[in-house]
Amino acid sequence: MEKNSVSKATLGRLPHYLRFLRELPKGTDYVSSTTVARELGLGEVQVRKDLNAVSGKGKPKIGYKVFELIESLETFLGYSSMNSAVLVGAGRLGKALLEYDEFEHYGVKIAAAFDCNKQPVKFNNHEILPIDELEQFCKNRCVQIGIITVGEGSAQEVCDRMVGSGITAIWNFAPCKLSVPQGVLVRHENLALSLAHLNNTLKNQIG
Amino acid sequence: MEKNSVSKATLGRLPHYLRFLRELPKGTDYVSSTTVARELGLGEVQVRKDLNAVSGKGKPKIGYKVFELIESLETFLGYSSMNSAVLVGAGRLGKALLEYDEFEHYGVKIAAAFDCNKQPVKFNNHEILPIDELEQFCKNRCVQIGIITVGEGSAQEVCDRMVGSGITAIWNFAPCKLSVPQGVLVRHENLALSLAHLNNTLKNQIG
Repeated sequence: MEKNSVSKATLGRLPHYLRFLRELPKGTDYVSSTTVARELGLGEVQVRKDLNAVSGKGKPKIGYKVFELIESLETFLGYSSMNSAVLVGAGRLGKALLEYDEFEHYGVKIAAAFDCNKQPVKFNNHEILPIDELEQFCKNRCVQIGIITVGEGSAQEVCDRMVGSGITAIWNFAPCKLSVPQGVLVRHENLALSLAHLNNTLKNQIG
Repeated sequence: MEKNSVSKATLGRLPHYLRFLRELPKGTDYVSSTTVARELGLGEVQVRKDLNAVSGKGKPKIGYKVFELIESLETFLGYSSMNSAVLVGAGRLGKALLEYDEFEHYGVKIAAAFDCNKQPVKFNNHEILPIDELEQFCKNRCVQIGIITVGEGSAQEVCDRMVGSGITAIWNFAPCKLSVPQGVLVRHENLALSLAHLNNTLKNQIG
């Protein structure tokens, strides 16, 4: 299977295409990029570019085979090979992320959360496990993604434990830099920055 | 005063420059971009580009006047004219944002939160006010920024009330599109997308 990297913007539209295609009346064999674009309020060129990046090209004047396109989107978004993530730090932000049910639409499932509780605790459909079980849990399940929602003071320690547990991609919400060995991906989420950027745009608009 | 728009990446580095400059030993009159770059582990060209975007150019071989640079950064980041925001939806995510103390480093202060409680409630240093007080509160304080952390079902209604209260920039965490009149900025925060992108990068690295 060919693997392509797509932009964050394209990635953001893929679940919308998928939802639209799944909701088509039964027996719809083909769908054109024109229809998809119109129904989702997007540009036709953009739709074609997005869909071609994850699937084969549509047939001129006919469009895309619906079931093939659904399959391609599901594969691309990782539905057929859901990736597991663990979250460390079940405070307010951590719990807010556990409640957020959008992740699975993008092929990632939070398999468990960890905190400094001594006994497992239930939270919604998730378990919050004692941090000492992190390594075993990740190794048993080949977890590759770690989400850090602890404070700045513990973030590096948590990061080190994650790396030691075989995790190779880290999504960090703590407001600090992390040192990781080569080959480990880190994505730093600075929520303040989004707000700052909005504020900055607003000021420039007025000024 | 000249107003410039800078990239999100530059904006993210500005508070680091500011912190570094403020911590310089008393009596340090000038600082060079070489020093700033070395101390913060950044590229020299990048530092010069960032600083020149918010301040005047440094003098060759001498550098930037420290107090002028601090003033320029503070002004740019809005410290001298802190912008107020309100947050609607004081659930877990909303409260996590209220706890997040990074916003003020970027010139935005969350003035109050609103939810469907009938009486004001204290939360940390914030007040959670009844939603019916939103309009009056925003108009009295000329609040321009609204943060939406309610569910998908109420987001448009909250958005309409914000617009009716004079808010012109909206930061939306609800997983849905919002219709706003022309001139109102909307920034959509899709947390799942950051994780999806990390997952996608990981898959491409392995595949």
